[in-house]
Amino acid sequence: MIVELINTGTELLLGRVLNTHQQWLCRRLADLGYVVSRQVAVPDTGPAIQQVVVESLSRADLVVVTGGLGPTSDDITRDLIARLLGRTLREDPAIVAHIRNYFESRKRPMPESTRIQAQVPEGAIVLPNPNGTAPGLAMPIATNPFRAGNGALLVMLPGPPRELRPMFSECVVPLLQKHLPAAGSFACRTLRSIGIGESVVQEMVAPLLQSFVGRGLEIGYCARPGRVDVRLASSTADAARMVKEAEAIVAAKLGKNLYGFEDDDLETAVVHLLTKRGQTLALAESCTGGYISHLITNVPGASAVLLAGLVTYSNAAKQQFVGVNQATLEAHGAVSEPVAREMAEGIRHKTGADYALAVTGIAGPGGGTSEKPLGTVFIALARPEPTVVLKQQNAYDRETFKQVTAQRALDMLRRTVA
Amino acid sequence: MIVELINTGTELLLGRVLNTHQQWLCRRLADLGYVVSRQVAVPDTGPAIQQVVVESLSRADLVVVTGGLGPTSDDITRDLIARLLGRTLREDPAIVAHIRNYFESRKRPMPESTRIQAQVPEGAIVLPNPNGTAPGLAMPIATNPFRAGNGALLVMLPGPPRELRPMFSECVVPLLQKHLPAAGSFACRTLRSIGIGESVVQEMVAPLLQSFVGRGLEIGYCARPGRVDVRLASSTADAARMVKEAEAIVAAKLGKNLYGFEDDDLETAVVHLLTKRGQTLALAESCTGGYISHLITNVPGASAVLLAGLVTYSNAAKQQFVGVNQATLEAHGAVSEPVAREMAEGIRHKTGADYALAVTGIAGPGGGTSEKPLGTVFIALARPEPTVVLKQQNAYDRETFKQVTAQRALDMLRRTVA
Repeated sequence: MIVELINTGTELLLGRVLNTHQQWLCRRLADLGYVVSRQVAVPDTGPAIQQVVVESLSRADLVVVTGGLGPTSDDITRDLIARLLGRTLREDPAIVAHIRNYFESRKRPMPESTRIQAQVPEGAIVLPNPNGTAPGLAMPIATNPFRAGNGALLVMLPGPPRELRPMFSECVVPLLQKHLPAAGSFACRTLRSIGIGESVVQEMVAPLLQSFVGRGLEIGYCARPGRVDVRLASSTADAARMVKEAEAIVAAKLGKNLYGFEDDDLETAVVHLLTKRGQTLALAESCTGGYISHLITNVPGASAVLLAGLVTYSNAAKQQFVGVNQATLEAHGAVSEPVAREMAEGIRHKTGADYALAVTGIAGPGGGTSEKPLGTVFIALARPEPTVVLKQQNAYDRETFKQVTAQRALDMLRRTVA
Repeated sequence: MIVELINTGTELLLGRVLNTHQQWLCRRLADLGYVVSRQVAVPDTGPAIQQVVVESLSRADLVVVTGGLGPTSDDITRDLIARLLGRTLREDPAIVAHIRNYFESRKRPMPESTRIQAQVPEGAIVLPNPNGTAPGLAMPIATNPFRAGNGALLVMLPGPPRELRPMFSECVVPLLQKHLPAAGSFACRTLRSIGIGESVVQEMVAPLLQSFVGRGLEIGYCARPGRVDVRLASSTADAARMVKEAEAIVAAKLGKNLYGFEDDDLETAVVHLLTKRGQTLALAESCTGGYISHLITNVPGASAVLLAGLVTYSNAAKQQFVGVNQATLEAHGAVSEPVAREMAEGIRHKTGADYALAVTGIAGPGGGTSEKPLGTVFIALARPEPTVVLKQQNAYDRETFKQVTAQRALDMLRRTVA
């Protein structure tokens, strides 16, 4: 089965927004057995959209198109595709009622322009949109004019992610299973490691998987700042078992460098470990500015683990809230091993947490010196055992600095607790 | 001039990573006058990469390809493209020396597999990579075999963003300006609004821009949670002046709902406003878990504005660090108007900040009640004038809840300070 994804939107080609649909839809489709073989983004212009839809229909059994279903003048996908397939548009009274109700329940007047979203091409299945006004549309094409002898299913979804995602899960998944059941088996597993480089990871695991590769296992490596993902995939008849066996081998070899699977993040691993042990955490952040706290609180259930996270950005706040000594600040400066230690021990003592992480450093772009260059950072972990402090040089841009430093701090905690 | 972008990587099609290159490269290219007309992602397989490169070369003057230049077995882009264009590969001793030095300076052994990255196709320009081991490659093609009578420039860039981005800025930009100077003029401006819906924004601004549209202005609208971007673009001879005039009209009409331009975020607007006035900010966050603090500290120069950000996740922390009264917690519960007020006033008093924002609510997925359903949140702003408290129902998933709530809190502050 050939599957293609088309994202429409001039803003994508001008680089004004990030295309999150690509990852979200590709992943959901792959996990259901519909691996996307090509993703294309084109601007909101008639010829570009028509050309790419014709190309995809000439190759694919399933074509998913996102965007261009809204009420504004650049929303032209529905109209163009209907014309391309020779289907007439009719206003659907149920959709008009939904749009009217949507605005009424929000006590806002219904703009006349939103009514265009009720136009439905002949033969299309309407996918209701409880989170917005534009419905999605699915068009079964019995005889594909662009690929003789084949049928196709064309699905159009609205652009906003919080409308598209529930619509996909609630309407598109059952539709696919009914109209276009996935034939082959597909299995995919991603193992996430931290602390070793990409080529070293390959040298560790590739020799152990040679016989699997001969039998159809695909191995992929993906480097991220400070981390490497190993992806194992197969489309063979025994895909699930093959991937499972390969996973066990890779996991054993990576050992403590393996921190999770699929979308697992370090913060999830840390929250789960601490929850299981009934232990608690406190944070005192300077240069990471609340980012570690933000990561931890993204994990559902974090409230059972995180007692408090203090962003002590100023020296005064370091003294006032976590009890750093003025003498220590004066003798060593805010970015120093002793201050990191006092921050971690101070917040651990004040909150009574089992573990406390503290971070102080120079994120940039300003503030570096020859002795403490940009990117210098001290990460302290206070715990029942003696406090440990790690010094790092994370000379990146400001946001990457925060990311890499936060990952490193969470990994220190993970390796201690695990 | 026709420009196309190809992103290679099976992980993209399996949805295992987010394609950030699309936005970053499209935006940089557009701003230089090279608007991308199509972006395509294909897996790391020989036929898929070769097919899409041939298609792009049959249409485009400039083709940018990302990924597949690394040391692992799925890095095949360089080899495939060389073969497609009939160029032989040769090892470049300068690149071997760079790779060796890269590992030596990090006190790590050089894996033999990394040496493959020193292979250079005949006639290619090497783009040095100070942030990694794989260089980029630019291939001027005098006679494009796939588009008779035309030349082309094909640029290959490494996948990791922190290698690709500086390489683009330092090497690719000068190369483009030399080999392929942009002919037309192009201007683009994005205005960012908050507090009004997409169709209302269009109804406000579209009638005022009719004469511009007749003369070649393109208008785009992009809805995000709680916000709407208006994009004005033109490729006419007087593009810059036209966009500037249209911008002034839209800005005047949007009034206080306009919070910035291009990539400006609310946090940037807030930090700049407070910096200009020499005023300071403190935060007490519960359900947003440090996210507001993280946003504020992403802005360079935030340290002059943010005194402290306290993530008082537990009731004990609310009492201990910001001075919420136990009686208030018992009488009204942690998610309540009086607790939000005491948090904001407490942290403002403790730090001496001019402004203090406090947030308490139910992010979910658990914790909702019939009286205080999931998504209930109180946002308090303490300031020299009497404190204001806003109640909202932001019933989204956990991360969207944090985003929408943080945006709303920052916007309260922005409208007060502006």
